[in-house]
Amino acid sequence: MTTLWEERYAERMEGMKSSVIRELLKITMQPDVISFAGGLPAPELFPIRDFGDACRYILSEQGHTALQYGPSEGFPPLVEWLCEKMKRYGVPAEPHNVVITCGAQQALDLIGKVFIDPGDVILVEKPTYLGALQAWNAYQAQFATVPIDDDGMQVDLLEKAVIQHRPKFIYVLPNFQNPAGTTLPLERRQKLVAIADKHGVPIVEDDPYGELRFEGEDITPIITLHKENTLYLGTFSKTLAPGLRIGWIVGPHPVIRRIVQAKQGADLHTSSFVQMLAYDICSRGLLKGHIAQIRAVYKERRDVMLQALERYAPAGVTWTKPLGGLFLWVRMPEGFSCRDLMEEAVKQKVAFVPGTAFYVDGAGDNTMRLNFSNAQPAMIQEGIKRLCTAMRQFMECDIDTEAPVM
Amino acid sequence: MTTLWEERYAERMEGMKSSVIRELLKITMQPDVISFAGGLPAPELFPIRDFGDACRYILSEQGHTALQYGPSEGFPPLVEWLCEKMKRYGVPAEPHNVVITCGAQQALDLIGKVFIDPGDVILVEKPTYLGALQAWNAYQAQFATVPIDDDGMQVDLLEKAVIQHRPKFIYVLPNFQNPAGTTLPLERRQKLVAIADKHGVPIVEDDPYGELRFEGEDITPIITLHKENTLYLGTFSKTLAPGLRIGWIVGPHPVIRRIVQAKQGADLHTSSFVQMLAYDICSRGLLKGHIAQIRAVYKERRDVMLQALERYAPAGVTWTKPLGGLFLWVRMPEGFSCRDLMEEAVKQKVAFVPGTAFYVDGAGDNTMRLNFSNAQPAMIQEGIKRLCTAMRQFMECDIDTEAPVM
Repeated sequence: MTTLWEERYAERMEGMKSSVIRELLKITMQPDVISFAGGLPAPELFPIRDFGDACRYILSEQGHTALQYGPSEGFPPLVEWLCEKMKRYGVPAEPHNVVITCGAQQALDLIGKVFIDPGDVILVEKPTYLGALQAWNAYQAQFATVPIDDDGMQVDLLEKAVIQHRPKFIYVLPNFQNPAGTTLPLERRQKLVAIADKHGVPIVEDDPYGELRFEGEDITPIITLHKENTLYLGTFSKTLAPGLRIGWIVGPHPVIRRIVQAKQGADLHTSSFVQMLAYDICSRGLLKGHIAQIRAVYKERRDVMLQALERYAPAGVTWTKPLGGLFLWVRMPEGFSCRDLMEEAVKQKVAFVPGTAFYVDGAGDNTMRLNFSNAQPAMIQEGIKRLCTAMRQFMECDIDTEAPVM
Repeated sequence: MTTLWEERYAERMEGMKSSVIRELLKITMQPDVISFAGGLPAPELFPIRDFGDACRYILSEQGHTALQYGPSEGFPPLVEWLCEKMKRYGVPAEPHNVVITCGAQQALDLIGKVFIDPGDVILVEKPTYLGALQAWNAYQAQFATVPIDDDGMQVDLLEKAVIQHRPKFIYVLPNFQNPAGTTLPLERRQKLVAIADKHGVPIVEDDPYGELRFEGEDITPIITLHKENTLYLGTFSKTLAPGLRIGWIVGPHPVIRRIVQAKQGADLHTSSFVQMLAYDICSRGLLKGHIAQIRAVYKERRDVMLQALERYAPAGVTWTKPLGGLFLWVRMPEGFSCRDLMEEAVKQKVAFVPGTAFYVDGAGDNTMRLNFSNAQPAMIQEGIKRLCTAMRQFMECDIDTEAPVM
């Protein structure tokens, strides 16, 4: 017997699915599985002692504020601190240009709520961040795509897509993209912005990983090139701690005001206490050193993963070489299915995310996303060895099946 | 010059407004204004020392979990603890019936997302909680109303409204209602459920204040009478601390699963750290004593406010006598506008929320909501004196204007 509720779902629920990744995470939580599936930061780097100091200070000095309701826009000193930080990074921002969100995921959701009518087309990279698709599916968006290569979005193909699909906005992850780990060079950013300007299309620039650069120089953010026609998304999830759930949007004041209205209805405001914790750590100047540490550790892990792939990967398998972030992208030869590979991989006690989850059109079945931030070097080495064994067995077996030796 | 974004708002934004209350709160933050406008708990009662102990314990023992991503459903031990608590209170709940939200406000938002199609009618009390209207306006809901009296929803008028409007669901705050402070007696709950059953309409039972009963006995929750056709909303905002942003929904498992999907897209999950703080305090048995303390303090404040109204209120002004919660409801004689009164009140350095904010149809201009939980007794006494002075001057002046003495 179904309940009255089950007969009454809104139409938008038809397109709403659980995240493959979050479902997968439950399976791969067994302790003997080496998982490259999640997008989890390395927990051993969390600045737990700094959080302890921050808790003590805030509860003793400002406990009443920390535990009380707060403004929907965010904790004002944190907003001001973020503006200074954004400016140094090249993003023009005054306090009235910023709203604090519950992680960048809520930023995506609120942007969907404020801008997406059913049937609106959003232009995304192919592949793109699964969480954005999930957030905007709930507003019945349609998606058009521009493929990426090892330098991110192929902007040569962008104008045609813009003309054909007239998107409401373009969504791009320019730095160490999720899932592919690619970075958009300056010339491509300029071309992207020129096309967006020419056709009057605004841009959502999602930048959760920009500060986790291992080598080379920061590249000018798109918002700096495109100014008030870009909404820029930042987060503490990768630089400080995802368990806080703090992200932010930078954009034109009138737009931020509407997003704040949407946030009021969505959850009133982000936890005062966690915002004050983040502010305390940031204002004591501890974030910078912490990020430097993360960079060094993740760089080593990326190197270990790349070296292990060089050493163990079967012929025909290729991968990206990210300059930062948390992920790299592996491609098996065309025709092999990474969803089918998963079965073999789980036997070998290793896990990844099948790449097709990041495609809006079911493509990318020969690809997979590997996370290198969460596991320690020895585990990465062992995990890649297992993964490559699984790939080799799978590829041989699959070839046997398709072209049996008579 | 407007930006590209401003030309592109979704249709649903047309109905979206800022909360009058949250805007008002900014004005009334001046330290010399005695404000009865907010719905703020008494900050001096926050169990700051318990939070300090909880922070120390969690960061030293489980820091990696507290700062990491967590499940969308909520922190499992907190979910289990809530089930036990709900069962003692009369609400049947197993862990798979519960999802943790960012305050009950997010519960309202997610219910809107999962169930409301544009144009769907939601049946609400008149007046009702402003935040629910705000959350569901974003999904382009229509509202039908059933008026309340001093015993809450006038269920005698409900069946006609159900037949006329065929609502998607009925929204009710049965205990110490926001804004009116009224409580629905058991017979009315039974009648409400009988009508809902007869016509196949599910119910959202919003119960943020139920535990803050000053006198009398708890009344059976609606979900106990209506079972799987009710979604029950709870929160720690009034019993522990609103700055945590923790609420929850209890409902049938298949529905909770869909709500969890919506939550994934909305913000992945509620902050792991604050959930673990709440769990630590609850599992150490500290919540019960804390609630007893809140009840005693708020009861005294309600009594002071009622006595001051008795003493100072001009003839013709009436008010509710809540048995718990945070609010009472004042009615000026018909024809007087509490929005206009506000101007006089601000001169007298006292603030309230004009009642019309809680009506979907612009009615209730002669009503206002007063909060008695936030200010201390001497301030309540002084504030009511000021408010009554303002009312008297306003009523006399208004009468003068309308019927001048020749």
